Amino acid sequence: MNLLIHGGTIVTMRGDEVIRDGAIAVEDGTIIDVGKAGQMLKRYASGYEKINAKGKVVIPGLINTHQHAAMSLLRGYADDLPLLEWLEKWIWPIERLMTAEDIYVGSLLTAIESIMGGTTTINTMYHYMPGENEAKALAEAGVRGVVGHVCFSWRKDDDRRALEDLAKNWHNKAGGLIRVSVDPHAPYTVDPEYMKELKALCEELDRKYGSEKAPIIWHIHVAETFEEADKIRKAFNVDVKGGVMEYLDSLGVLDGRVIAAHCVALTDNDMAVMKVRGVKVSHNPISNLKLASGISPVPKMLEHGVTVSLGTDSPCSNNAADMFEVMKVTAVLHKGVSGNPTAMSAQQVLKMATLDGARALCWENEIGSIKVGKKADLAIINFDKPHLCPLYNEFSHLIYAAKSADVETVIINGKIVMEDRRLTTLNSEKVMEIVEKAKNRLLEKLQTQH
Amino acid sequence: MNLLIHGGTIVTMRGDEVIRDGAIAVEDGTIIDVGKAGQMLKRYASGYEKINAKGKVVIPGLINTHQHAAMSLLRGYADDLPLLEWLEKWIWPIERLMTAEDIYVGSLLTAIESIMGGTTTINTMYHYMPGENEAKALAEAGVRGVVGHVCFSWRKDDDRRALEDLAKNWHNKAGGLIRVSVDPHAPYTVDPEYMKELKALCEELDRKYGSEKAPIIWHIHVAETFEEADKIRKAFNVDVKGGVMEYLDSLGVLDGRVIAAHCVALTDNDMAVMKVRGVKVSHNPISNLKLASGISPVPKMLEHGVTVSLGTDSPCSNNAADMFEVMKVTAVLHKGVSGNPTAMSAQQVLKMATLDGARALCWENEIGSIKVGKKADLAIINFDKPHLCPLYNEFSHLIYAAKSADVETVIINGKIVMEDRRLTTLNSEKVMEIVEKAKNRLLEKLQTQH
Repeated sequence: MNLLIHGGTIVTMRGDEVIRDGAIAVEDGTIIDVGKAGQMLKRYASGYEKINAKGKVVIPGLINTHQHAAMSLLRGYADDLPLLEWLEKWIWPIERLMTAEDIYVGSLLTAIESIMGGTTTINTMYHYMPGENEAKALAEAGVRGVVGHVCFSWRKDDDRRALEDLAKNWHNKAGGLIRVSVDPHAPYTVDPEYMKELKALCEELDRKYGSEKAPIIWHIHVAETFEEADKIRKAFNVDVKGGVMEYLDSLGVLDGRVIAAHCVALTDNDMAVMKVRGVKVSHNPISNLKLASGISPVPKMLEHGVTVSLGTDSPCSNNAADMFEVMKVTAVLHKGVSGNPTAMSAQQVLKMATLDGARALCWENEIGSIKVGKKADLAIINFDKPHLCPLYNEFSHLIYAAKSADVETVIINGKIVMEDRRLTTLNSEKVMEIVEKAKNRLLEKLQTQH
Repeated sequence: MNLLIHGGTIVTMRGDEVIRDGAIAVEDGTIIDVGKAGQMLKRYASGYEKINAKGKVVIPGLINTHQHAAMSLLRGYADDLPLLEWLEKWIWPIERLMTAEDIYVGSLLTAIESIMGGTTTINTMYHYMPGENEAKALAEAGVRGVVGHVCFSWRKDDDRRALEDLAKNWHNKAGGLIRVSVDPHAPYTVDPEYMKELKALCEELDRKYGSEKAPIIWHIHVAETFEEADKIRKAFNVDVKGGVMEYLDSLGVLDGRVIAAHCVALTDNDMAVMKVRGVKVSHNPISNLKLASGISPVPKMLEHGVTVSLGTDSPCSNNAADMFEVMKVTAVLHKGVSGNPTAMSAQQVLKMATLDGARALCWENEIGSIKVGKKADLAIINFDKPHLCPLYNEFSHLIYAAKSADVETVIINGKIVMEDRRLTTLNSEKVMEIVEKAKNRLLEKLQTQH
């Protein structure tokens, strides 16, 4: 399908470029032209489905670089609890009962919520099973994604089988929409030898199924809490004095294809190591605050030259998949904590949620900005709303005032997946119905156990 | 108009009461019955306009206890700047050009945004002028409000005239919808003598125009930044060592009719004083973070037994009038900062935004909970949305997952002011149009000056 989006204000994320009364032409999923609407309406007069974006703002689709998509099933199941009690008494017992079907259904729901909030790419880590799974759900929803399988020392053989199946069946599949990753859970649940093995396995799978342009990346939780270094030391009797990232570097696993989620408890050493190795970060401020993990030193990482992208984390520690919320919280939180109101400008935060998200997933050759040659992943936002009035500056409104509900039309890989807030790929009523049923099934199973 | 809202889940804010398939009967603006829908549909079969709330959640309207409603005109005008540069180079020069008409128009816009986000009461502090003003705008919108006039040492005579006019014309007017307050700007801009005078004037106006049930209250910014104590000492050569609140207490101005906005930089003394005097707080976390003022010690104030309510602050330091955002940020921020994930439970935060808001405005006899005898200020929220699915717990979803755009119908003083997201009191398209014009007029005036 060829598209011409015209008449809107285009925030390209190529620097501070803002094209008023602009237009974007799309052919076969790829952006072929970006410019002023007047000329482009003539140039692409026929053969292009027209989308009138007058009064609207077009941005690159948002990139959520840390999710556990299936966990939307547990949204609001347990909150306001101490972390260990939350995990051990609430989350883990019910997660153990989740089937492949549940994982698939939860991911469908997250895909819907993501589209409706302008998120076009999701980096998700969960338990992969052949058949029904997160990758299948995202592909059906038409949402771009990196789908990983989370690995633990206690299930190495299962992990290896899952990773091989995942890479073979899903890497660079669904028209290039889905890529895969190798996901060691965390440095305290994956022993040093297994950590190294998973890096080697990632490289091996990448040689088999990946390419320079579409690599298989490595997605891991790092330094989520201040207790983590101690947990690693106790679990594996290793030296973590220099910091968790430095410890990982001593294993030789860090490079530019690593995305580390959270990074709350970092040393200065850690940040220097990250810069040298090119490790990318997914910053998840809402989840980190809600779980009382702490506040990631984002301004300091940026000073070190580290690429920091944004994520929601799972819908049961957030409890939303809303990147507009994450952007606003990121912009205000670090001002408040650092005492510097000029920290984290609106434009910088939007870059973290778009171009830097693409970089963090090694996908910046195709997504993250509105540029000829890139894939057409776009969110069209209706600015004709009382809370977006009056308009002085688009970047300011996008970060501080716009909301997920203002996203009107979403295009992924050149395909319209939501138009005027109606989904085209999935029936949200039906998905909500099966999600409620899945929830009830889980609660019944839990009760039967007791 | 008599109303019967039936079939929804009612979160009354009387403790943790949740009535499923409940109903609320309203006569002449007052709640006359609350119970199960089955019985009440029979009891109020005729003579009541029915609102079917199946699949929806009904809560008391949210109470925003700190606003400068007119400032929506400056939303996004200047952000990400050092505080003094922001005020002196950006906000103050353009504010000086604002006319009574501008103030009225900006307040209309804030009223609309508030209704659309489930906020039914606004406590606003701004420059009052007879004629066009904030009170008129709120009354026309049908929004409940406490409207103040902000006082400074440099304009005492003007302040006295404005306060007398405001109290006479607006206190307990518009069917009891509008009340007024006396608003010393802050302890560093109001000298000690004038501060005492304003307290005496508040009491005098209350004797003339107020009553025990509808008092004229005192609304002031206190301890917004850590520099404030020093600013007070330098301005007035007074002792502020014990804390800003203790200093105010030494002037004899603190009592249960004082609402103090911000309270970021408090001493332990201050908190003890607040408890003893019954001073209420408006906590504005988003504004405090965005302006890099710091983080108010809310859990500590709650431990001291101080009533803490919630506010957005002005739409140019937030940049929204969205109490759902403020509730979520309040709930997660203090967990993250205190390291305690059980701090600020969902239920507690909803109480801060409703019942404690009513207490902070000395209005709890009429609003803040769903209870027979109270005014019908209600927000009906559509829970049939992907991001509110599945449902385990209403309190959790209301704080962590629901958004202002999920509010479907709003009732204030028994009157439907928004139905299925259509406003009944104002034309939002028209208001947005005159706001854009007002903005352009202001920018032109500013340019003419230079």
